[in-house]
Amino acid sequence: MSKNRGVVYVGPGKVEVQDIFDPKLEAPDGRRIEHGVVLKVISTNICGSDQHMVRGRTTAEPGLVLGHEITGEIIEKGRDVEMLCVGDIVSVPFNVACGRCRTCKSQDTGVCLTVNPARAGGAYGYVDMGGWIGGQARYVTVPYADFNLLKIPDRDRAMAKMRDLTMLSDILPTGFHGAVKAGVGVGSVVYVAGAGPVGLAAAASARILGAAVVIIGDFNKERLAHAAKVGFEPVDLSASDRLGDMIAQITGSNEVDSAIDAVGFEARGHTGGEQPAVVLNQMMEITRAAGSIGIPGLYVTEDPGAVDSAAKQGNLSLRFGLGWAKAQSFHTGQTPVLKYNRQLMQAILYDRLPIADIVNARVISLEDAAQGYESFDKGAAQKFVLDPHGELAKAA
Amino acid sequence: MSKNRGVVYVGPGKVEVQDIFDPKLEAPDGRRIEHGVVLKVISTNICGSDQHMVRGRTTAEPGLVLGHEITGEIIEKGRDVEMLCVGDIVSVPFNVACGRCRTCKSQDTGVCLTVNPARAGGAYGYVDMGGWIGGQARYVTVPYADFNLLKIPDRDRAMAKMRDLTMLSDILPTGFHGAVKAGVGVGSVVYVAGAGPVGLAAAASARILGAAVVIIGDFNKERLAHAAKVGFEPVDLSASDRLGDMIAQITGSNEVDSAIDAVGFEARGHTGGEQPAVVLNQMMEITRAAGSIGIPGLYVTEDPGAVDSAAKQGNLSLRFGLGWAKAQSFHTGQTPVLKYNRQLMQAILYDRLPIADIVNARVISLEDAAQGYESFDKGAAQKFVLDPHGELAKAA
Amino acid sequence: MSKNRGVVYVGPGKVEVQDIFDPKLEAPDGRRIEHGVVLKVISTNICGSDQHMVRGRTTAEPGLVLGHEITGEIIEKGRDVEMLCVGDIVSVPFNVACGRCRTCKSQDTGVCLTVNPARAGGAYGYVDMGGWIGGQARYVTVPYADFNLLKIPDRDRAMAKMRDLTMLSDILPTGFHGAVKAGVGVGSVVYVAGAGPVGLAAAASARILGAAVVIIGDFNKERLAHAAKVGFEPVDLSASDRLGDMIAQITGSNEVDSAIDAVGFEARGHTGGEQPAVVLNQMMEITRAAGSIGIPGLYVTEDPGAVDSAAKQGNLSLRFGLGWAKAQSFHTGQTPVLKYNRQLMQAILYDRLPIADIVNARVISLEDAAQGYESFDKGAAQKFVLDPHGELAKAA
Amino acid sequence: MSKNRGVVYVGPGKVEVQDIFDPKLEAPDGRRIEHGVVLKVISTNICGSDQHMVRGRTTAEPGLVLGHEITGEIIEKGRDVEMLCVGDIVSVPFNVACGRCRTCKSQDTGVCLTVNPARAGGAYGYVDMGGWIGGQARYVTVPYADFNLLKIPDRDRAMAKMRDLTMLSDILPTGFHGAVKAGVGVGSVVYVAGAGPVGLAAAASARILGAAVVIIGDFNKERLAHAAKVGFEPVDLSASDRLGDMIAQITGSNEVDSAIDAVGFEARGHTGGEQPAVVLNQMMEITRAAGSIGIPGLYVTEDPGAVDSAAKQGNLSLRFGLGWAKAQSFHTGQTPVLKYNRQLMQAILYDRLPIADIVNARVISLEDAAQGYESFDKGAAQKFVLDPHGELAKAA
Repeated sequence: MSKNRGVVYVGPGKVEVQDIFDPKLEAPDGRRIEHGVVLKVISTNICGSDQHMVRGRTTAEPGLVLGHEITGEIIEKGRDVEMLCVGDIVSVPFNVACGRCRTCKSQDTGVCLTVNPARAGGAYGYVDMGGWIGGQARYVTVPYADFNLLKIPDRDRAMAKMRDLTMLSDILPTGFHGAVKAGVGVGSVVYVAGAGPVGLAAAASARILGAAVVIIGDFNKERLAHAAKVGFEPVDLSASDRLGDMIAQITGSNEVDSAIDAVGFEARGHTGGEQPAVVLNQMMEITRAAGSIGIPGLYVTEDPGAVDSAAKQGNLSLRFGLGWAKAQSFHTGQTPVLKYNRQLMQAILYDRLPIADIVNARVISLEDAAQGYESFDKGAAQKFVLDPHGELAKAA
Repeated sequence: MSKNRGVVYVGPGKVEVQDIFDPKLEAPDGRRIEHGVVLKVISTNICGSDQHMVRGRTTAEPGLVLGHEITGEIIEKGRDVEMLCVGDIVSVPFNVACGRCRTCKSQDTGVCLTVNPARAGGAYGYVDMGGWIGGQARYVTVPYADFNLLKIPDRDRAMAKMRDLTMLSDILPTGFHGAVKAGVGVGSVVYVAGAGPVGLAAAASARILGAAVVIIGDFNKERLAHAAKVGFEPVDLSASDRLGDMIAQITGSNEVDSAIDAVGFEARGHTGGEQPAVVLNQMMEITRAAGSIGIPGLYVTEDPGAVDSAAKQGNLSLRFGLGWAKAQSFHTGQTPVLKYNRQLMQAILYDRLPIADIVNARVISLEDAAQGYESFDKGAAQKFVLDPHGELAKAA
Repeated sequence: MSKNRGVVYVGPGKVEVQDIFDPKLEAPDGRRIEHGVVLKVISTNICGSDQHMVRGRTTAEPGLVLGHEITGEIIEKGRDVEMLCVGDIVSVPFNVACGRCRTCKSQDTGVCLTVNPARAGGAYGYVDMGGWIGGQARYVTVPYADFNLLKIPDRDRAMAKMRDLTMLSDILPTGFHGAVKAGVGVGSVVYVAGAGPVGLAAAASARILGAAVVIIGDFNKERLAHAAKVGFEPVDLSASDRLGDMIAQITGSNEVDSAIDAVGFEARGHTGGEQPAVVLNQMMEITRAAGSIGIPGLYVTEDPGAVDSAAKQGNLSLRFGLGWAKAQSFHTGQTPVLKYNRQLMQAILYDRLPIADIVNARVISLEDAAQGYESFDKGAAQKFVLDPHGELAKAA
Repeated sequence: MSKNRGVVYVGPGKVEVQDIFDPKLEAPDGRRIEHGVVLKVISTNICGSDQHMVRGRTTAEPGLVLGHEITGEIIEKGRDVEMLCVGDIVSVPFNVACGRCRTCKSQDTGVCLTVNPARAGGAYGYVDMGGWIGGQARYVTVPYADFNLLKIPDRDRAMAKMRDLTMLSDILPTGFHGAVKAGVGVGSVVYVAGAGPVGLAAAASARILGAAVVIIGDFNKERLAHAAKVGFEPVDLSASDRLGDMIAQITGSNEVDSAIDAVGFEARGHTGGEQPAVVLNQMMEITRAAGSIGIPGLYVTEDPGAVDSAAKQGNLSLRFGLGWAKAQSFHTGQTPVLKYNRQLMQAILYDRLPIADIVNARVISLEDAAQGYESFDKGAAQKFVLDPHGELAKAA
């Protein structure tokens, strides 16, 4: 193991790559965990939800090592790890999950009951998610390895597809979960709010689920242009506040079968200001009666930086009566990655899902992470993949 | 056919039984409907949603004939009715549905696309639901009879169980839909908000679905006492605003598996004032992570009598961030009665579901409807069943 | 209406195009049906299940007008048809269904309880399926038109895509049903038995459902070559009786996630003789534990031409113990086309499902139907589409 | 730990209680298993599937320690057991499952891929199921304890309900799985083949799932009388071979909604001889079109004692064409107990499911096990529960 380095949140608007402690087979509370492994990180991505912390929109403390989108190679394993070997290439679901509690046994690994004393659900490198150390680093620890890790069958195929496979740790399953919960199926007309990486992953998921057409709305012209380039129908939200009409220009109807919110609580209204409920309210309007709305976009219980006191408590002014009149259903929450990652891996390995191109993956070195955060925050139409050991660069 | 009489909304707070037109095989727009039948109404119930109109909380116009909970005998049928005969005893789903549009074909009959020019979904005797004449009357027309009507197999068994079977037209399926959508299954711990007839029907539904324990919350002590008498666990909401603690006293945990909102937009807070989002917010708090919330209680798109301007538009201040953090799902809308009524009829006919006793059915004559409305509005722990031809009285 | 002509079964091995009666708005029992329409047939396909009759493997009587795969234009409608107009282009599900019985209300239109006095389920032009006249003709009657027919939204788009849309009446939904019931989803490894049109439609369905790889087995080298050409992995069953090994050469594992039987009771063993259970037994062997097997291929209750007395009664010697040990499930029956055709139409209209090319559609004139039957019976790698009015030829 | 004693298969028709080795934290291959626990067995039941071995119908070797229905108290735990404590009262699913493989992660614990080198699926004390030592004993080892074990929340409630809770290890979930897979829901008309303990558990499950009426068929008059006593409708199969007619006498229809096979491969025909396919064939006949058939009854891949050579290979002569014509589905396999046991425990603890009385539990001492096997084999209408430490006798 070479010296460990990681991306550290040092204060609002600022991250740095610093020397950090070497990972040990230990839980955040210091217990030895023989069910864990240590990974050499092969790739690790910058996520939109990291930005919430970096922007100071959460209670994250400086010093936090970031990163929950991790793919790596096992370099050490605890004595109770039975199914995996040193040398295996594995994808890490961003959810930390024990595999032994009621919710994990039902595949609801996004709300594991045991890995976070504060609430249901754990994650790496994230505020309020249990204190597990982040993986935007050279090395990282993963607990309950047999349960959590997805082994990628063949090292050579793994490395050849790493730009795609790195999306299995979070955004691809997250987009997929949104699409599944929105009821997307063969022939569906789908609307995705947000053309960032999760929105694009949701759109890609809708496509492989058989959607007839996927419409994607955003204010960011560069992101819309990229969405169009990879085959989705862009809608420029700055052009009008009549979303239904813009959709009807594409499909002939102002309602869609399924809608996916890939924006979350930092939503902005037509005129630019923050309106945390605007996406949800639009979706009720443009989703058909009896339709479903998938909400992978993050909504929070506390938002110190919100525009008003209601939103600071996670309260939104929803046009719920409209949704009720249309008999809609609403599906929220962290994605249980483990429920979907094996099947999505298969789709990638068999060339059915070119997710790296769809989200416009851009590989940069770990040491350049701060520039990646900055570009992403400015709305670059790219998904930044960090390459801590230069292995992606080598494989390319 | 004797002279027709029906319950007419004459203005806020007031209904009268008046002479009304005889039913014809005609749609609200005057078209002849050969797919329709005329029923002699055997029983027809007063519903909580009728109260919204009578209280002046909707845009209903005086002169409206009320009533959407109807059971009757076919006395005339159109040319295109093939499966039913004059003399059949039938239960009428409150939803008017065509059986031929996309949503009806998918059993989403609560949002039929063709029977209401204004929006998805039709009903009898209800504002904004397509203009179909209500059935709190001696006679009524039902369109698309082959599709809509549920024949009760045997006339004698039908009459013997009529106090129970009359609940098939609305509240029993409505409660059942709420329970199903809340994910109630064998062994579930369930919370039902509201101990009125729909709440009790939801509780009865949860029980026959196998719930381990059903907790029911209300402010009305008479209704709570009745709920306890029929085997549910009452929670007096006036005692505390800490619902989780009160639940924990019953089950040992402050969270339930499934929650059902049988209250809707006229919800009141702990201190008595109207707080339209209070029930939904409580449910997010007391429902477990990964749990579902069924919302049969009515939320509206316009509420002229609401406490504030947001609620007048059907906007609610929801603590959505909390629901999201717990990965909950929310299921709304008018119940598609037809999806459930056959199986619930079977449960009644085989003595598995004593719904009349559970909701405390009280049979009164049609002419006494106004008193029924008044008692119900005051919170009587009863479900009023109108008996237009005295047949229920005779059968008892 | 010009003079009606249709394909008539005249005895084992023989069909002829003859003058037939003009269609009327009448049921097989002579009742007038105001819910029906008369169609000018635009396209109508020859189906493998027609071959069972023509080969004399059923109790079909000479004189039967064949054809249950129909797309057409409404030229006359009964007085009770409300949702459709003369001039509409419509796809006809092969199942005749009333839309009013218990099974139809649950979307199980393949086993409608009222359109066939002999048993559950009706079809056009098919022995024991209720006596509805077949549609390999210039004109045909369709009952319960509002319920049964799928309107194709736009006439020009309809005609432009007619070679694809004609597959909506049977084989595309049939293949899709098989895939859905086999549990095919994103990332699945799928085996399809049979590279005829239904097998190819099942394979196409598996692909649009997101399958990672679709393997297709047959003895017919021409059909296998076509399957490979359109992107599936062919397995030549004449090469070996070790199907698992042949699959493993493609995927690395001798088991698949999902298997679809698109062969049915006329299955042949490795050495060529008829072995009606061989496909089902192979599927138990090569499907993974906890996997599902979809069986759209036809199995019959009586097979006068079967190899042995057990099979004559529809009895098969199944290795059921193996399936049980692997906790598999088995899904049979006629496909309820109406459950799937709208969504599949959308996929076609938005260029997601080039089914005509996948099944190798070949358009011939109605008058050439006999040659089509003969070629198809000999195993041509084509799906024959009859063009009674020359409209397909014109559109091409 | 006192000296260990267990029920040992010593040859066809014979079991003995013998001194056996003390349990260790070891897998059958001798590996140390830190994820395991040692239990003091509180109750352990004799199962019908044990009888298959004892009758010599399997390849079980003498010396096998029997028993896979186990409830106990943890007296020792491995290092990797985190969620459980010494002293906890736990129910053991009969399936041995790792919780880490693909099928376990999907809750298909009946076909775990890692605990049995020979095939998918493991069990305690059973031939060909991985070599795990049986639990009809004073002490036993359970691997992957955190994943496999269901903790019963409160020791006193646990002991007070032990006669019921002991059914959670196998027959109650097995009957429940059969009912769920047969599509039993509220209002269903259900047929259960076999009035032994699994049949009664299936019937009890159907009831708590809301079935309108449960019919149960058997040849054994004593078992039928008991079934009637606990509220099911008995059908004496020795009275007639026209099962549909006998059902129609109860319900008015010769078809049921759902059917459950709780008999398996040792089925007998009307005239008494073994006919391994008779139950499955009857079920196709009496189950409605579009209905499902749940098959918890065991079918085997090899049956050395079968009536004919086909059955010796697990081949059955099924009237598959009939099932296909009715669009039925068939669901097989070992029950994944873990998927259901928590919810069934809740139903028991809240007095919703008096399963001990329904199956007529009879507690006997471990030392009397041989008599229990003998009585059960003769068809006693009882479920024998062994009480190795006299704790059940004490609690009663």
